Amino acid sequence: MALQLVIGNKNYSSWSLRAWLLLAEKGIDFEEIRIPLNTPEYQDRIKPYSPTRCVPVLLIDGKAIWDTLAIAETVAERFPQMQLWPVDAERRAHARSVSAEMHSGFNALRSAMPMNCRAMGRKVPLPEGVIHDIDRVFEIWSDCHRQYGGGWLFGEFSIADAMFAPVVLRLRTYGINLPDSASHYPARLLESAALQNWLADAESETEVIEMDEAGR
Amino acid sequence: MALQLVIGNKNYSSWSLRAWLLLAEKGIDFEEIRIPLNTPEYQDRIKPYSPTRCVPVLLIDGKAIWDTLAIAETVAERFPQMQLWPVDAERRAHARSVSAEMHSGFNALRSAMPMNCRAMGRKVPLPEGVIHDIDRVFEIWSDCHRQYGGGWLFGEFSIADAMFAPVVLRLRTYGINLPDSASHYPARLLESAALQNWLADAESETEVIEMDEAGR
Repeated sequence: MALQLVIGNKNYSSWSLRAWLLLAEKGIDFEEIRIPLNTPEYQDRIKPYSPTRCVPVLLIDGKAIWDTLAIAETVAERFPQMQLWPVDAERRAHARSVSAEMHSGFNALRSAMPMNCRAMGRKVPLPEGVIHDIDRVFEIWSDCHRQYGGGWLFGEFSIADAMFAPVVLRLRTYGINLPDSASHYPARLLESAALQNWLADAESETEVIEMDEAGR
Repeated sequence: MALQLVIGNKNYSSWSLRAWLLLAEKGIDFEEIRIPLNTPEYQDRIKPYSPTRCVPVLLIDGKAIWDTLAIAETVAERFPQMQLWPVDAERRAHARSVSAEMHSGFNALRSAMPMNCRAMGRKVPLPEGVIHDIDRVFEIWSDCHRQYGGGWLFGEFSIADAMFAPVVLRLRTYGINLPDSASHYPARLLESAALQNWLADAESETEVIEMDEAGR
């Protein structure tokens, strides 16, 4: 099975990070195809890969699978030995719930705090909707630690950890303080060698763009 | 296994329809708990069921699973004999792709054309983003019919059909003409006895609210 993952800029593309981290953290072999966003040639370069013209796209033996949660479920299914979802059925349902919640929601947080891995100490206004989203993130992380212990949200690394990874980076970029109860997952994520590789690559990218989540 | 599905108004709640149709179309037995949205008692009534305070929520033996795509994957897993995803792996990956695309996207369409099952002949402005979304929906429906034939998107009824059901009702409410190539799925959906039951219930609801997708 040959895997190719088409991603955007590592510094800016939060959905790319989710799909990439899922593969990289588990040591699944894949070819990375990076297409910087917001460039004149983006449309021409993404078109052969992606029916939605968005990143990320996973090609399995040349066949496109798009949208992060579909990529995640498909990889979980094709690599059952990697246990990308928790083995316990009830825990798995919980992990799927918070992953889908991330996939469809948190719009206020995502639009107020675009991912920018390199940036630190940025300040943005925090209207009520953003505070609400941040509080809900803290609630999820705290609740997972209380129920399952450890740093990763559901015991072992899972798709849920990949889904929330960009949120950790955003809170860091925009200087949001974490309550102790919600600090275990961010600390564990930042110890990940795969994530540190991503951050080093983001650091070395030369493109500078102002973008919001709509551009992914 | 005891299933309870907590939904909002049948007339207005498009995410509720998706989860409900998935169960009803397949004849999976469940108790329906309807909590009308935008009422003074909504928060108090939803709180015991839903950590996100949103509908739909599926309770399996009392344990909450939320967000439509997590509900769908969990039901697919617990009822394998129902074949809620296509049996063929490649077709399944395709069905997951368009389902996840619906779950995370089409924001312009969803916000310009809130679901209102009872309403017909409504007119709304169609800015470029909405036209783009509508064209993409037509592309998906046409492409599925071309590849797999029939009315349902992937041959047999699947989660993808539940995901796109509210779009069919929206196009009907707002009088959007369908190209012939994209007409097979809407025609098949409207023949569904389960969907017709939903529409009859929506017709008999007495609440009238102005809402957008954010309220679900």
